[in-house]
Amino acid sequence: MTDPFAHGQLNLVPFVSVHHMMELVLEIGVERFLTELTGYIEEDFRRWEAFDKTPRVASHSREGVIELMPTSDGKHYGFKYVNGHPKNTREGRQTVTAFGVYADVGNGYPLLISEMTILTALRTAATSALAGKYLAPKGARTMALIGNGAQAEFQAMAFKALLGIDRLRLYDIDHAASEKCLRNLAGLGFDMTVCGTAEDAMEGAEIVTTATADKQYATILTDNMVGAGIHINAVGGDCPGKTELHRDILTRSDIFVEYPPQTRIEGEIQQLEPDHPVEELWRVITGQAAGRREAGQITLFDSVGFATEDFSALRYVRDRLAGTDHYVNLDLLADPDEPRDLFGMLLRFPGSSLLASRRRA
Amino acid sequence: MTDPFAHGQLNLVPFVSVHHMMELVLEIGVERFLTELTGYIEEDFRRWEAFDKTPRVASHSREGVIELMPTSDGKHYGFKYVNGHPKNTREGRQTVTAFGVYADVGNGYPLLISEMTILTALRTAATSALAGKYLAPKGARTMALIGNGAQAEFQAMAFKALLGIDRLRLYDIDHAASEKCLRNLAGLGFDMTVCGTAEDAMEGAEIVTTATADKQYATILTDNMVGAGIHINAVGGDCPGKTELHRDILTRSDIFVEYPPQTRIEGEIQQLEPDHPVEELWRVITGQAAGRREAGQITLFDSVGFATEDFSALRYVRDRLAGTDHYVNLDLLADPDEPRDLFGMLLRFPGSSLLASRRRA
Repeated sequence: MTDPFAHGQLNLVPFVSVHHMMELVLEIGVERFLTELTGYIEEDFRRWEAFDKTPRVASHSREGVIELMPTSDGKHYGFKYVNGHPKNTREGRQTVTAFGVYADVGNGYPLLISEMTILTALRTAATSALAGKYLAPKGARTMALIGNGAQAEFQAMAFKALLGIDRLRLYDIDHAASEKCLRNLAGLGFDMTVCGTAEDAMEGAEIVTTATADKQYATILTDNMVGAGIHINAVGGDCPGKTELHRDILTRSDIFVEYPPQTRIEGEIQQLEPDHPVEELWRVITGQAAGRREAGQITLFDSVGFATEDFSALRYVRDRLAGTDHYVNLDLLADPDEPRDLFGMLLRFPGSSLLASRRRA
Repeated sequence: MTDPFAHGQLNLVPFVSVHHMMELVLEIGVERFLTELTGYIEEDFRRWEAFDKTPRVASHSREGVIELMPTSDGKHYGFKYVNGHPKNTREGRQTVTAFGVYADVGNGYPLLISEMTILTALRTAATSALAGKYLAPKGARTMALIGNGAQAEFQAMAFKALLGIDRLRLYDIDHAASEKCLRNLAGLGFDMTVCGTAEDAMEGAEIVTTATADKQYATILTDNMVGAGIHINAVGGDCPGKTELHRDILTRSDIFVEYPPQTRIEGEIQQLEPDHPVEELWRVITGQAAGRREAGQITLFDSVGFATEDFSALRYVRDRLAGTDHYVNLDLLADPDEPRDLFGMLLRFPGSSLLASRRRA
């Protein structure tokens, strides 16, 4: 295998900044990027059993959480650093920021460092659309989008690219968020309605995406709002203490999850008994389990975001990055002439004072 | 608290490359760097109970291991990415490379990204010297240095800076390694002897540092080689299946460790019963436990390297970096005008094709 980034310098690691990521996404095109990324995520779900899976390593504080999400397929290793601090928006910061590293298992050397704030937004939407492909009613065109924050437009674009959704019913407790969403998506092929209530947004929707951000038990959807046959894409309930759906909706739904040990802690199903039956998305994708079986069924994708999806995203970015100029090389790894001579590298560094003091001696 | 790196741009994170780290180390001076770094490590050991401690998260493969080592003191969070691949040297790569991140717990934003290959070598040596300060015989001047690879000179410099060690007895199974060590340390204030055997190296030594690299059970020191009163600084035995000392030495020694749950898996004491008594270094430093009590006692620091030491090292580098030009700022974090408008940032990016397609519409 030739390394597309081969430069003969073992110290260098390609780095994709936020600026570079935007260049890459726009060069490829948002819809195509989402479609191709969904393909990578699907491919990795198909070989689910090849992955070394650990629940994320979380460091909780009063203000939020910092997490490391590692995984490996035996050939490559990836991890994401991600924070979640709901109060950040008050200081003009992002609630969630992230970066990730992709590495070679054979020698442990990083192959890519990338911003993952934008990339996470894209992979979250791509994973939702992937689940939707298997679970949503066939021919669905209308999606209710409840919670119109940072994730909303990405969800809309992914469902458009993958499922052909072209009618959006927007609702947010903060009307300005819906207006922002409306402005951002204007002219991109959607028929959009801003709704005054969540109930109103549900009218005629075949898919409902919930993507609200408060770190608290909330009830964005109540049982009476959910009719037969709908697909629920629950994105916002993604950490302990943070849910969006009334428990009664869950017991009426067939629930699909990424990785049960993590979702039972972080997802909507934290409200249920620990042995409540759920189906794993990878088993639906590989045909080992059924997705949507009948028109009246309520399907629920309880999305929390799993490490393999970040792995797929890093894998995709690295493949797409080769041959472009949307990265810089970072001098991250010490590369002495002789591997055991790390001190000698310091000693021979131009202007080394060690050398100077020795010369004086 | 004012941020010494304040630049009014929330997207930027200072990055210390290998080149920058060498500049910083040489500007400060290796001995002073090691002395000050030891101070930071000692300070953090003194507030040991403030740290959130988790054993490292390891991903093992046939060829080696990739690990994440996170910790937090409640105000700051740090983690290190580090690999261990003994076969790497055959391809001209380092056995161990590392980088680390230091972040603000309050908002989850990274404050520093740094190379840590050089920094780990320095912090490992600094921690050994710190343990030596409390455990080695008073007035010790002679150290046997067994294993003359990448870590050897750093150990020598740290014990010189902190304890005044100025006589070294070098031994390595590969004579060329000892010769490299001799060359690198020439003129830096040591009286050095290259020895033909490990036994020979032990002659007259008050401290013995073992820092060999093979990933296998080895017996660098046998029981008969270890006389009364010596301090053993065992650096090389640092992962499951990798030890350096004969078991009988361990049972004759008073053993001091960083974090017992990790050392029992990775250190020399993996050879002992899981309840074999060990003392924690932080308790010696805070005066809650005795260090060296008598001249004839054999003390053993079973070093494996713990996350708090990396935290201390990142904390030190960040403090010392302020006001220098030994870093660059990376555009790592998305910083939209409005935190919830991540998609809008993409949309308004110069040359955005999204915008173009909308204009055409």
